[in-house]
Amino acid sequence: MRAVQLAFRTATAADLPDIVRLLADDHLGATRERYSDPLPESYGKAFEALRQIGSEVILALDGQGTIIGCLQLMILPGLGQQGRWRAQIEAVRIASHLRGQGLGAQLIRHAIDRARERGCRSVQLTSDNSREGAHRFYERLGFKASHVGMKLALE
Amino acid sequence: MRAVQLAFRTATAADLPDIVRLLADDHLGATRERYSDPLPESYGKAFEALRQIGSEVILALDGQGTIIGCLQLMILPGLGQQGRWRAQIEAVRIASHLRGQGLGAQLIRHAIDRARERGCRSVQLTSDNSREGAHRFYERLGFKASHVGMKLALE
Repeated sequence: MRAVQLAFRTATAADLPDIVRLLADDHLGATRERYSDPLPESYGKAFEALRQIGSEVILALDGQGTIIGCLQLMILPGLGQQGRWRAQIEAVRIASHLRGQGLGAQLIRHAIDRARERGCRSVQLTSDNSREGAHRFYERLGFKASHVGMKLALE
Repeated sequence: MRAVQLAFRTATAADLPDIVRLLADDHLGATRERYSDPLPESYGKAFEALRQIGSEVILALDGQGTIIGCLQLMILPGLGQQGRWRAQIEAVRIASHLRGQGLGAQLIRHAIDRARERGCRSVQLTSDNSREGAHRFYERLGFKASHVGMKLALE
């Protein structure tokens, strides 16, 4: 099988339906997201809020220009480590019918390059304990599983 | 021993020397931070950047008004889960001579209340694998260790 060489660009609001379709195309996302026409307006508000704080959604496109992957790249200031900027990768998706071909690795490597370009000194992410294989995937890309990720839902 | 009842407020730039002193007062922070007079200007820039994106540093004060703890509360938009806002707690410190008295729990509970007040639907944090005791501490406060936290340093 010949590897697809992806192209990448930063998403605009017009890409939101494609992004939400990808977010929902996942065993956890299927229950958490709502892909409808029109989209719930909370997605548009969140997209605008991300843009306002200098974060971005990166799209992966195949040779035909079809959006087949995405991730959210948070560019975060912080006091720790003498005020280093960090990038935080969230909501990583590759279209389910294209998984297992190394496309996710291309997308993450692009995000790492983009984080460096934007002045970040580290890249961080958390991965659900149930996402089998993802931890090894990130370790192959150079990440270290150095932390425990903890969450508290608020009602 | 009578428990100290802490007061809390959002930090201003004038509090930065006290905050950096606390950040450095830790076995990991001691090698990562630089508490000098004047402070490295990167701290002031990071503080302003945090303020601009709507995040904040919360201070814990004892009965005399002395700053004895702090944490960074990131208020983050995101597309996931239909555009839910999340709070992210970072850089938690209690002055080393006051640890083990339940003050950290008061500080985290306050941060959780503040996250709810600011419209967040969850609170997340990562804790270094080497921070023994911290994971149990957060679990007692209701957090679930549901994720693996991964980091990649950029050079």
